[in-house]
Amino acid sequence: MKHISIINGPNMNMLGQREPEKYGIETLESINKRIAREAEIVGATCAFFQSNAEGELVTAIQLAADADGVILNAGAYTHYSIAIRDAIAAIPAPVVEVHMSNVQAREDFRKVSVIGPVCRGSITGFGADSYLLALYALVGRSTYSVGRSR
Amino acid sequence: MKHISIINGPNMNMLGQREPEKYGIETLESINKRIAREAEIVGATCAFFQSNAEGELVTAIQLAADADGVILNAGAYTHYSIAIRDAIAAIPAPVVEVHMSNVQAREDFRKVSVIGPVCRGSITGFGADSYLLALYALVGRSTYSVGRSR
Amino acid sequence: MKHISIINGPNMNMLGQREPEKYGIETLESINKRIAREAEIVGATCAFFQSNAEGELVTAIQLAADADGVILNAGAYTHYSIAIRDAIAAIPAPVVEVHMSNVQAREDFRKVSVIGPVCRGSITGFGADSYLLALYALVGRSTYSVGRSR
Amino acid sequence: MKHISIINGPNMNMLGQREPEKYGIETLESINKRIAREAEIVGATCAFFQSNAEGELVTAIQLAADADGVILNAGAYTHYSIAIRDAIAAIPAPVVEVHMSNVQAREDFRKVSVIGPVCRGSITGFGADSYLLALYALVGRSTYSVGRSR
Amino acid sequence: MKHISIINGPNMNMLGQREPEKYGIETLESINKRIAREAEIVGATCAFFQSNAEGELVTAIQLAADADGVILNAGAYTHYSIAIRDAIAAIPAPVVEVHMSNVQAREDFRKVSVIGPVCRGSITGFGADSYLLALYALVGRSTYSVGRSR
Amino acid sequence: MKHISIINGPNMNMLGQREPEKYGIETLESINKRIAREAEIVGATCAFFQSNAEGELVTAIQLAADADGVILNAGAYTHYSIAIRDAIAAIPAPVVEVHMSNVQAREDFRKVSVIGPVCRGSITGFGADSYLLALYALVGRSTYSVGRSR
Amino acid sequence: MKHISIINGPNMNMLGQREPEKYGIETLESINKRIAREAEIVGATCAFFQSNAEGELVTAIQLAADADGVILNAGAYTHYSIAIRDAIAAIPAPVVEVHMSNVQAREDFRKVSVIGPVCRGSITGFGADSYLLALYALVGRSTYSVGRSR
Amino acid sequence: MKHISIINGPNMNMLGQREPEKYGIETLESINKRIAREAEIVGATCAFFQSNAEGELVTAIQLAADADGVILNAGAYTHYSIAIRDAIAAIPAPVVEVHMSNVQAREDFRKVSVIGPVCRGSITGFGADSYLLALYALVGRSTYSVGRSR
Amino acid sequence: MKHISIINGPNMNMLGQREPEKYGIETLESINKRIAREAEIVGATCAFFQSNAEGELVTAIQLAADADGVILNAGAYTHYSIAIRDAIAAIPAPVVEVHMSNVQAREDFRKVSVIGPVCRGSITGFGADSYLLALYALVGRSTYSVGRSR
Amino acid sequence: MKHISIINGPNMNMLGQREPEKYGIETLESINKRIAREAEIVGATCAFFQSNAEGELVTAIQLAADADGVILNAGAYTHYSIAIRDAIAAIPAPVVEVHMSNVQAREDFRKVSVIGPVCRGSITGFGADSYLLALYALVGRSTYSVGRSR
Amino acid sequence: MKHISIINGPNMNMLGQREPEKYGIETLESINKRIAREAEIVGATCAFFQSNAEGELVTAIQLAADADGVILNAGAYTHYSIAIRDAIAAIPAPVVEVHMSNVQAREDFRKVSVIGPVCRGSITGFGADSYLLALYALVGRSTYSVGRSR
Amino acid sequence: MKHISIINGPNMNMLGQREPEKYGIETLESINKRIAREAEIVGATCAFFQSNAEGELVTAIQLAADADGVILNAGAYTHYSIAIRDAIAAIPAPVVEVHMSNVQAREDFRKVSVIGPVCRGSITGFGADSYLLALYALVGRSTYSVGRSR
Repeated sequence: MKHISIINGPNMNMLGQREPEKYGIETLESINKRIAREAEIVGATCAFFQSNAEGELVTAIQLAADADGVILNAGAYTHYSIAIRDAIAAIPAPVVEVHMSNVQAREDFRKVSVIGPVCRGSITGFGADSYLLALYALVGRSTYSVGRSR
Repeated sequence: MKHISIINGPNMNMLGQREPEKYGIETLESINKRIAREAEIVGATCAFFQSNAEGELVTAIQLAADADGVILNAGAYTHYSIAIRDAIAAIPAPVVEVHMSNVQAREDFRKVSVIGPVCRGSITGFGADSYLLALYALVGRSTYSVGRSR
Repeated sequence: MKHISIINGPNMNMLGQREPEKYGIETLESINKRIAREAEIVGATCAFFQSNAEGELVTAIQLAADADGVILNAGAYTHYSIAIRDAIAAIPAPVVEVHMSNVQAREDFRKVSVIGPVCRGSITGFGADSYLLALYALVGRSTYSVGRSR
Repeated sequence: MKHISIINGPNMNMLGQREPEKYGIETLESINKRIAREAEIVGATCAFFQSNAEGELVTAIQLAADADGVILNAGAYTHYSIAIRDAIAAIPAPVVEVHMSNVQAREDFRKVSVIGPVCRGSITGFGADSYLLALYALVGRSTYSVGRSR
Repeated sequence: MKHISIINGPNMNMLGQREPEKYGIETLESINKRIAREAEIVGATCAFFQSNAEGELVTAIQLAADADGVILNAGAYTHYSIAIRDAIAAIPAPVVEVHMSNVQAREDFRKVSVIGPVCRGSITGFGADSYLLALYALVGRSTYSVGRSR
Repeated sequence: MKHISIINGPNMNMLGQREPEKYGIETLESINKRIAREAEIVGATCAFFQSNAEGELVTAIQLAADADGVILNAGAYTHYSIAIRDAIAAIPAPVVEVHMSNVQAREDFRKVSVIGPVCRGSITGFGADSYLLALYALVGRSTYSVGRSR
Repeated sequence: MKHISIINGPNMNMLGQREPEKYGIETLESINKRIAREAEIVGATCAFFQSNAEGELVTAIQLAADADGVILNAGAYTHYSIAIRDAIAAIPAPVVEVHMSNVQAREDFRKVSVIGPVCRGSITGFGADSYLLALYALVGRSTYSVGRSR
Repeated sequence: MKHISIINGPNMNMLGQREPEKYGIETLESINKRIAREAEIVGATCAFFQSNAEGELVTAIQLAADADGVILNAGAYTHYSIAIRDAIAAIPAPVVEVHMSNVQAREDFRKVSVIGPVCRGSITGFGADSYLLALYALVGRSTYSVGRSR
Repeated sequence: MKHISIINGPNMNMLGQREPEKYGIETLESINKRIAREAEIVGATCAFFQSNAEGELVTAIQLAADADGVILNAGAYTHYSIAIRDAIAAIPAPVVEVHMSNVQAREDFRKVSVIGPVCRGSITGFGADSYLLALYALVGRSTYSVGRSR
Repeated sequence: MKHISIINGPNMNMLGQREPEKYGIETLESINKRIAREAEIVGATCAFFQSNAEGELVTAIQLAADADGVILNAGAYTHYSIAIRDAIAAIPAPVVEVHMSNVQAREDFRKVSVIGPVCRGSITGFGADSYLLALYALVGRSTYSVGRSR
Repeated sequence: MKHISIINGPNMNMLGQREPEKYGIETLESINKRIAREAEIVGATCAFFQSNAEGELVTAIQLAADADGVILNAGAYTHYSIAIRDAIAAIPAPVVEVHMSNVQAREDFRKVSVIGPVCRGSITGFGADSYLLALYALVGRSTYSVGRSR
Repeated sequence: MKHISIINGPNMNMLGQREPEKYGIETLESINKRIAREAEIVGATCAFFQSNAEGELVTAIQLAADADGVILNAGAYTHYSIAIRDAIAAIPAPVVEVHMSNVQAREDFRKVSVIGPVCRGSITGFGADSYLLALYALVGRSTYSVGRSR
């Protein structure tokens, strides 16, 4: 069994309420349930964390040092938090950057990801499916469909 | 059955020979076979195209206008081809930008994607798996695991 | 009765002690009392919050979603907190950006407000009166002097 | 009695006709009447001036040197008129920069105010109420509600 | 009969005297006569205005609000007059930006047109013919050669 | 009889299909027919060429070296193809840059034309009429209405 | 006898009143008298003009086309008026740029002179003496001390 | 006895685990012990604080207002936290910026210190010794070797 | 015998016709003959290729992977073709960048070479001799005058 | 008697030989003689120094600390020598920056003067007369024509 | 015994005379004596060098190649001398960058250190003590207080 | 016989000692001997000069005014010495810029050559052979292999 840590950043707790025409009406709780269900199928356990606070996200990443992978939607901090970048670089676990919306298609300042260079990879633009694809990327590398044909 | 067009740009025909420490030893042909096999499983057909020429890639994208999705690794053109950007914007089919390496972790000029804003989403950094994840994202939206729990 | 939330950011708790030649000798507590008194006169209730922590300010803004208006002095976060910007955009309540000093007349990096574009308006440079003017702007729109001649 | 000079810049004479979905249908004349009425109540007299010409605005500001305050909506000149900036710096009267729309939420070039650093403060985004709030800020400092609780 | 307003900006009154190797020896008066003659042929009336003053050009554009079209050579103001830009945006008449010389081939600061984004289109580099082509563009849209093959 | 070469760049073959709300429903073939008909009237012959490939456009421009004029809509290449710029500079025939849409009113990267400085002039924003106006500019210089009053 | 035109720009009419610690207490009238007296000595006649309006300065420069020299303190317009730059380039008379203060030692935006490249030379930082030195530079070239040792 | 506050920022709690080839294998606890021992020798008492949270660091700095000196390793916040900068400026105690690694030799974004301008001085690149040198700088100013020869 | 591939980019086929005052009157064919003759002397064989198309140049470079050296004049593509850069990086053969003119002495955009960092070296400014010097550099390294004194 | 130090920087020893069409045929020695002669007339003594070396110019400026004025043509060092800037700031003597050519009209990098902000003023564009005008500015302040009317 | 080379750059010979309110009244000679005395205590010998000339500083650094450490205050050259940077990189001895003032708190151009990335570390802002702290950092690493607790 | 001057800049005297993995183990003396030997063969005499001092290099270039060519490796000064640039422009002798390493492949600040635009051409990246190739380029133009086939 692989252990995956799913960490969500600022304002992700507003999902379902916040600009639903942009982010949909599904809540973070509901998305997390879908991830947990899918994780069970692909043979993984999940831990979920959300915070609006940069420092708590830094700590959460540090605490995930021994996970088999981290799925991180750092929200707005993606664009300026060098502290989160350093936390990612400080742990051995591979971190996948995810975003629900296609951040490239939004304001210019959202095109810069200061955490991207220290992540394993990134998946953006597929709504809640971005999390599931990240799960496949992390878990499937050895046990499941993604990569099983190797 | 969904139809997916997989389009690869310049120097992707060198895979397996070119900087193997960076891109691995698998050839494009071999990767394409894996994609085709996986596509069969998830109920999709694939068409493959590779070219070093910007203009031919523009034309290939135009010809994929009626596909159910396009997986595009535009290679170096990602960073400056407004012509490819316009071709993507000109067709109704959703286009997913993929990269095998984590382009964010390379030279600064590779951090800019001129095609990103007109794509559906992007998946980068998972080697050949980037293509498979894009396949799931496009196909699974209605028929398969990604999203089936909806 | 309208309900207004007054939120102050980092180092505003130092008012009265911190560089008094720039910010005056009045404490935040004293300013808040003046606002409360004035609010009573114009028929509004107030809630006050101050924090040095970006994440707590994000949460405070989210919690003010149902207020009739928010008066926000985000202090230094004004210039780089996209997380606070996103929180403002995520709530329906109108937010007025205030600053006691004329930030345009200080260091260049203080001329950029990342929250400005998602606020209703801004009032800067009038010391503690900036808060009162913001109160009038929010409350007076329908019940008091500002606009009553309509 | 305090004397306040209200100076409006280019295209403000088009109010009511120009892009009403952005600026409303109220004319400048009507706004000026409201200001005059409100000024009377708070014990102030007003002089009004509007011009499309940068040089005439410079002269108008010079002529207001002895006023108790100037309310200035410099319109487009806000963003590049160093001549108007120098005129403001050349007179002892405090100048308040006002804008009806939230200029921070518009084109990038409107985010730069070359006059801001030499004004007393600025009020933006409250439609015609921006002028009234500026009036309170200037007059109320010693005789009226804003600040009377001191 | 369509009514077209031809507005010329700073230093255009020097045509014929000013750097003749760059602008030719024809005076503005002579060019205007040619435009008037051609307008008569294509069934249009013309009004001509020239000023060195930014504010007067703003006013002239405002006064042309009801014209069927405006041909505007804003001269040097093209590159920095946001006031003129706002005047163009404030009127319903379509405005065509013209330049006699190919501004793209001159100093870098002449490559920026702040009025371009709010004009209907632009015609540059054909000497006095730039005005005639703009006339065809505006008038011919419904009654004359340009477009008559529709 | 003058000979004019009309050269169209990438994605212009999609006209009528591509974003019709932006480019209209007329196809390139139909536009070319209108140009040919109009050319006949003004006493010119035309050759038409379209390609998505930068290199083929370079070659086409080289082959038009002896034409009496070239009308070039380089599409997206306008903004970065120094190769096309060099081809234009390498031939004696005058080249007119045309665009159907007002490129100044679109994304910032479309405001830069690397070919502009080596063209005779440019005409943008008049839909298919942009080509006709360019035709008049090139042909009319000596034989037809534009300039006949000289 | 040489004829020299002395042209002063915006806010120069405030000399003596405006920031006297920076510009001194001498009025423009008094400075002009000193220039006139000195001109008489070196055998020159002078004409004086001051305006706050960019367009009037453009016209004044055009009218000085036949002078033996122009001494121009364009004030704030120095830093952005391309219209004045074009006027200088349009006349044959040599223009000397002068400033009373050392503009290099002030705000960054004052370090850019858009008119400098088309002037004969510039003299800055010597208070009212800057005008006298410019007078010597223009007149003395053939008849007086500056250069008489040639 | 002087009292010195030693404040460490984000990810400093990972010392010894995090990238040991870059930061060594010594833990923060061990470094703090060395500082405390050395402080005793030079006649000073120390208080230690570490947090990953920007807001808590702001508060910690505020609470050190009466210390004889603050040694601050703000970690990643060094490069963007204007809130911490303002906290430093708000207290009378001298603050010394320290870094264990030579930040100038790392990524470009680490070359910018937003807190540097309001600190007393900075010491970077000497590993844990950076803290000791800062201690000498603060304490030794009057009682110990550094400066005793004065 | 060493094998050298000489690859020329866009517009090099115009040599002799194109701007002869800048590039001389010698054709590419003639230059190639000189290179071939000189190669024979220094004991090398040559293959020549020219194309206006970026993609064909990419392919040509890939096909030269086993050559003993490549002499590449990428023309305008030098300044923006990351695709060509990647092709150079993808082959083991050393590539020498050549230019006939001194590109540093021309337009600013020609001062940037995106291919320079992945080439062995560069030779610019010696007309057709640039190719011969590159030949010496590649061949002479072991068999001829350049380096024979080692 | 006032004592003035005239210091010339790199390549000024080439005057008369170097690009005579730009700098004239007069040698530095000859110019210095003219300055000395004029100085005698206006009651001043002169010392002359020229060096190509930045460090020697720094020392020369330091040695002129007690002069009544320094006339400095720092040549190319004007644009980047912060060492010379610091030397100027370190001495009490007023320094006048001179240039023979109008540096504003040359390459962009010559528009930046790093020494300008610490000089008394600057005089550029009058050939060798620039030195004489600087002499008048320095000496005449109390004893001669410039300023004598005070 | 360790041998330390202390190298001072331009204008450091002016210490005590130059802007004493910024740099104090102590001369370089006096500071050097203090360093020598302190060095004796910590068991080190010192060599002192000062020059205003960049090239001599380059040579001095080369000559210190075998020292146990170099303390370098490069003065103004810190900000632009790549030659000094290269000299530092060319020797094995560790170089410590020192500044007496807090350069971060001065002009923007002083915030850039081109030598920082190739130095061991830097110490700024402690007046003459900066040299002593650098001495401790270099010597104390093995024999004295700094680090003796290891 | 042609006379060639070979001038080397800062730190080139360290060749053989300095970063041998980057610059090889050959000393400058040894390289100079090779150049002299080769020069003899191709019928040229050589003079050699090296200095760490910018001013001495300026003088050396001036003294080479009558040479048949100058080979200049300006080292670090390449990137910022406008004084050397001006010296090159001031002499009639053609100057060839050489570098042993491929400067394009190193730090960004080494990609800028301020001397390139005034040199005849440049040769970089061939180690000591760069000097020999420059020799051929300068001498061979009329007497030897390079160019003899003309």
